[in-house]
Parts: sequence; C-alpha cells; structure tokens
Amino acid sequence: MFELLATDATTRARRGRLTTAHGTVETPVFMPVGTQGSVKTLHPDELRLLDAEIILGNTYHLWLRPGEETIRELGGLHRFSAWDRPLLTDSGGFQVWSLAKTRRISEEGVHFQNHLDGSPALLTPEKSMEIQASLGSDIAMVFDECPPFPCERNYAEKSTSLTTRWAERCLKWHQENAIHHLPVLPPTAQGDRPPQPLDSEIAPTRQLCFGIVQGSAYADLRESSARDLRALDFDGYAIGGVSVGEPEEEMFRAVDHSEPFLPSRKPRYAMGLGTPPQMLEMIARGVDMFDCVHPTRSARHGLAFTPDGPIHIKNACFERDPAPLTGDCHPHLADFSRAYLRHLFKAGEMLALRLLSFHNLDFYLRLMRGAREAIKAGTFGEFQSSFCERYNHQTK
Amino acid sequence: MFELLATDATTRARRGRLTTAHGTVETPVFMPVGTQGSVKTLHPDELRLLDAEIILGNTYHLWLRPGEETIRELGGLHRFSAWDRPLLTDSGGFQVWSLAKTRRISEEGVHFQNHLDGSPALLTPEKSMEIQASLGSDIAMVFDECPPFPCERNYAEKSTSLTTRWAERCLKWHQENAIHHLPVLPPTAQGDRPPQPLDSEIAPTRQLCFGIVQGSAYADLRESSARDLRALDFDGYAIGGVSVGEPEEEMFRAVDHSEPFLPSRKPRYAMGLGTPPQMLEMIARGVDMFDCVHPTRSARHGLAFTPDGPIHIKNACFERDPAPLTGDCHPHLADFSRAYLRHLFKAGEMLALRLLSFHNLDFYLRLMRGAREAIKAGTFGEFQSSFCERYNHQTK
Repeated sequence: MFELLATDATTRARRGRLTTAHGTVETPVFMPVGTQGSVKTLHPDELRLLDAEIILGNTYHLWLRPGEETIRELGGLHRFSAWDRPLLTDSGGFQVWSLAKTRRISEEGVHFQNHLDGSPALLTPEKSMEIQASLGSDIAMVFDECPPFPCERNYAEKSTSLTTRWAERCLKWHQENAIHHLPVLPPTAQGDRPPQPLDSEIAPTRQLCFGIVQGSAYADLRESSARDLRALDFDGYAIGGVSVGEPEEEMFRAVDHSEPFLPSRKPRYAMGLGTPPQMLEMIARGVDMFDCVHPTRSARHGLAFTPDGPIHIKNACFERDPAPLTGDCHPHLADFSRAYLRHLFKAGEMLALRLLSFHNLDFYLRLMRGAREAIKAGTFGEFQSSFCERYNHQTK
Repeated sequence: MFELLATDATTRARRGRLTTAHGTVETPVFMPVGTQGSVKTLHPDELRLLDAEIILGNTYHLWLRPGEETIRELGGLHRFSAWDRPLLTDSGGFQVWSLAKTRRISEEGVHFQNHLDGSPALLTPEKSMEIQASLGSDIAMVFDECPPFPCERNYAEKSTSLTTRWAERCLKWHQENAIHHLPVLPPTAQGDRPPQPLDSEIAPTRQLCFGIVQGSAYADLRESSARDLRALDFDGYAIGGVSVGEPEEEMFRAVDHSEPFLPSRKPRYAMGLGTPPQMLEMIARGVDMFDCVHPTRSARHGLAFTPDGPIHIKNACFERDPAPLTGDCHPHLADFSRAYLRHLFKAGEMLALRLLSFHNLDFYLRLMRGAREAIKAGTFGEFQSSFCERYNHQTK
C-alpha cells in the first residue's frame, strides 16, 4: 500500500507513494479539507486543475448533515461530491472535542450535544468506523480522544490508554464489518437521467485504516502510544493532539517523541497542520501527510500566500497594483491584478474568496511538489532553508 | 453596427447581430449582470463556458468603488475584470433612483448621498458618460430619470422631457469627449510581470451609445420620447422605466407604446427584465436585448430554473434525489445530484451558489439560443407557446 521511494541524505524527509482504491498519492502530500463534502468555494474541476491528489472529508459534519445513510444511498462520498480521486475521512474525534457542547467521555464513547441543533448524540469507535465505511472513504481514521494543551499527567495517561483501547475496537469493527457497509450505487429516479458512473467506481474498493498516536506533551506516553498502535499493524499512523493551541516547539517535540517508534514502511500523517514552514519542518522530521484549513480559511479572510510570505490583499497598497498575486501565478488567476482582487474583497464579491482559496491551495500543493523533487534530488535541507529564508523575510 | 438578419412571420420577433469593438452579439440576447465587475460567484472562464456573448457592468457601483479612475488606469473594465467580450454599462440612473438616499433632481443632474457611506455626490449626464468612457464599455447608456410606478401625469411629462434634454447632453458629451477618456494600458510595476494584453485590446475601440425611452404608463409620452430620441440617431434604444413594480401588462404596454416609433434597423433593449416567459413575450413584441439579476439572485436563494418551471432546491423532496437538476444539464453540473445541491445549500456552502448561478444563466442563455433558432426557422410563435405551456404547468 505504501512504497518508500527515497529518503533524504541529511534530514529524515521521505519520498513515498500511497496506493488506495481511488488511485495513488505521491508523498509528502497536502490534503485540501472538504469539511462538508466540498472544499470551500471550489468545484471539483478546480481541484483537478490544481492537481490535488487526495482531499479530506469530515465524518462529524457529514454524519450530522446530510447523514451517512443519505450519502451511502447516493453512492458514497466520492459520487455524492463528484470527486473521483482518493479521499480520507477523519474520525470525528477532533470535532467532538472542538465543536460539540456538554461533552461527556466514557469507556463506551463520547456523549455530546451537536453544534447544529443541540440534539444529544453518542459517538463510539464502532459508530465512527461505520460512518466512515458508509461514506466509502479510501482512508478511515480511528476514533481517538484528543486531550487539550496543556494537559495534566494523570489525565494524559488515562486518555492515551483509552485512545489505544478505542483503536483496538475500531480496527476490530473495520476488519469485520467495513466491507458490508460500503456504499451502493444510487437508484435511478423514474424518467430522470442518472449521473454517469465515475471511472474509479469500477475499481475494487478496500478502505485503509490509520491509527492515531496521542500522549500529549509526555515523551514516554507518546512512545508507548506509538508502540501499542504499531503492534496493531495499521495501514498508516497519524500524530494527533497537535495544533491544539500548543507552542510550535511542543508540536515538533510531539513528532520527535512518536516518529522513531513508527514503522518506516508506513505513511505518517500530522493532523491539522500547518503553515508552510511548519510543514517543511515536519517533513524534515519524517512526516508524509498533512491537512489543514489554513490555506482556504485564511483565503476567505483575504490572506494570500506568496514566496515572500503572506500578504493581506485588502491592504491599501494594492489599490492600483496591476501585478498578479505572484510572479508565477497559476493561469486560473494570472489575468487578475492585485487591484482587482482587492476590489472584489472590499465589495464583498464571492469570486474573491474562490480565487484566493484556489491560489493558496496552489501554493501549498506546489510547495509539496517542490519538497518531493528536492527529496528525490537529495537536496531537501537546502530546499527548506532557502524557502524559509525568503518566506520569513517579507519584502512587503 | 446592427444587422437585421430575419423577422418572424407571425410575431414581431427579430433575429439580429450587433457589432461592437470587442466582438459581435447575436440577438435576441440575454446579458448576465456583473454589478461590481464580477457576475456574482462566477469566474470569466465560466461565462465563456456558458457562451455568454455580452455582460453588463453597473456604472453607479463601479464609480463609487473602486472608482472609474482606478479602473481606467488599470486598462479599463475589460482588462480589470479579465472579460474580453462585449460589455455594456448602464448609466447609474436606475441605481440613483433605487439605492441612493436623499435624492434631489435638478436640471443639472441628481444630488444624492451614496448607499455605502452616505457621502454627498452629484451625478450628471456628462459625468455618467465620462465614467462609462473611463470604464471603456462597448455600449454606454444615456443618463435618464426613472420615474416610479404609478406616476402622476404632470410628473411623468416633466420627467420625460428632462430625460430627453439629458439624452441630448449625453450624446453631445459622448461625441466630443468619449474618445479622450478611453482607458489606457496599465503601468508595469517594477519587478512584477504585467498582465498579458487581451487579444481584443488590439482591436479599434469605439463606444456605442444607446438612448432610453421613458414616459411611464402614458402612451403619448412614450411615443414622443421615442420620436425625440430617434431624431438624435442613437446606436440603439432601450425601453426604460419598466420592471419598477408595475403589473406585467403595464410592462408589455410600455413596449407596445414605444416600439412602433423606434427605427427597425437599431437594436431595442428592455432594461432589467425578466422571467423566461416575460422575455419571450418581449421578443414577440420586437425586443432584442435583456439584462436581469433574476437568474443569479434567485440562484443565491436556492431557486433553479427548469423547463417545467422553477424549483426550490432546499425542498425536502430533493433530500435523496439522485438526479441532476435537469435532464439535459450543462456538463459543469451534470455530476451533481439534486440531493448534493440541496445539502450544499443547507450547509451554507458557497459552491451551491456558484452551481445554481451557473445553471440559471445556462437556462437563460439557452432560451435565447432557442429563440434565435426559432426566429430563423420562422416558428417563434410555436416556440414561445410550447415553452410557456410546459414552464407554467409545473410537474413538481
């Protein structure tokens, strides 16, 4: 499922290839986030134009609305959202932690009130896996408990061992039941033309399952979590409980405390990260996969990534600036000046949000392509330092 | 500038071709509205995919923000918004009437407070033409006074003759000055790559100028307005003061009272219209051009046009409907089920607004293509009645 194609000479950076039911993914890879079955503001044609290889869907959101049974009946999340390439779903654990109200954690799972209408609900390891199977994602994540930062030693110990027990239950459910819950083809409405099958729907489907290392800021807990999960032989391993408000150095330490105990022949995924320099640093520490709402969310606030650091397109200095966002802008945006983009933002035009979302994802995906080439060439260290030097010394 | 290619045998419907500096426009034509330099939610590539031949820009909005001098310095509205096909600008008269506060009309022009920050401003016939020249549109509209409905005879008389005097001032300014205000090519920012010139920017530029017939609901005022404007020999003629809250029959009467006195060899444009059946009825009464925010605005509220009448995509009946919006959906939308579109709307995803805006414009533009073919075939009457019969008897 995962081939390790090359390792960098001077860092722990790796070049790999992950094979899924809907195609292969070249790593290191950034996964745009399609929270509710749509990468915000973008059409799937644009994601293909960006050459996005894999996107992420949020189990918690899609479970609450429109419901996994609706999506399953309509042929699964690929067909539902017209996305024919690989798709990863998270477990809902992070959203239950960050969005839901009156959360109560027990051995069984998490009781909470959902953020849409306050209805009470219970998410368990088995239910999370069932939802992800019904969505038909290529990669399912185990249901974990995400502790806050900072976290007392006592709580972190209990939480980490709970996450490990949940991981066992997830894997058991996945091995015994996932195949029976995979999506079916949609019914044909009388007199209506059904959607055409996607090419990839002919391919055989087998959902991969990734474990998630927890352990908060405690090196020994990270190590034991990684060792316990490794023993369960998952298809890949995420490092969770990062990007939850901790200092950047803590985030890197969480990786350093987990990565040495993970198998080198399986992909490693740092969840919910990050800024461009953070991702490069994570790659240098042996991470292969990333997802983050940062490029699309900050785009909707008018922030555009450039090789010279981010710029705020609403700034007055761009009022009559005839240049495109960057010197080597994607052709999709190359005809638009900064002045025009600024105008669209000031005028509240949705096209602005689309164009900046597209641009920022292009920036992230190009950065990953650059990283892959550098690892192959054995020059990742130079790539990282030259990128960061320019990026961190803004000319604007 | 305008060729009359065919006239229908049994109705007053006309098939024509309007030539502008940025290309030809086949009539009858529907012009998508790009209020603030963007057809809401859509990229110009999508307008080309829809085969939109001409779009509209709003002088009032672009004057206030970002300002016509900014757009002129950046190469004009075509370059600014990356639109290389014909472009019509309205005069601002309608927006001053519908949006501005504390409006005071004098012989000179209209004093008002703008709707953005309440600043006092004065829009005159000359200023409106100067803004439109600075924007570099292919067709400029004269500055008119748009009376309300209903309107006292006394007021309508004064207003109509004021509109005629303003039309004379507009034409005089246009003939003497427009050429000197046309946009210049944008400057090149040091060290930045300038945008590439559009093909059409090499073409010679001459802005057309259309008059606007007023006269409220009074047949003799409509006639005298049309005759007076005809004597000024404009490049085309709009019928204004329609779609201002009057009953549909009044709208058709306004056309009937104006159209016979307009030259047959010039295009006729009914401003701000309408529903699909209204446009067909207007075509049957000799109108060639339309613009309306209806398809894009109603899309943003979840209304989708179909041959069986409009549907509300948020309705519960579409919750698990696997069919695309219509049986012969544009390929841009054909992979999306009604269930998915409904989900995107319920979830507040911007992609929903994009997809329905695209679909509704496709519906309007296809209707116009159908009308053109029917006029050419001499079967417009049948086309209109068969469309309306199906459209008005909804199966949903």
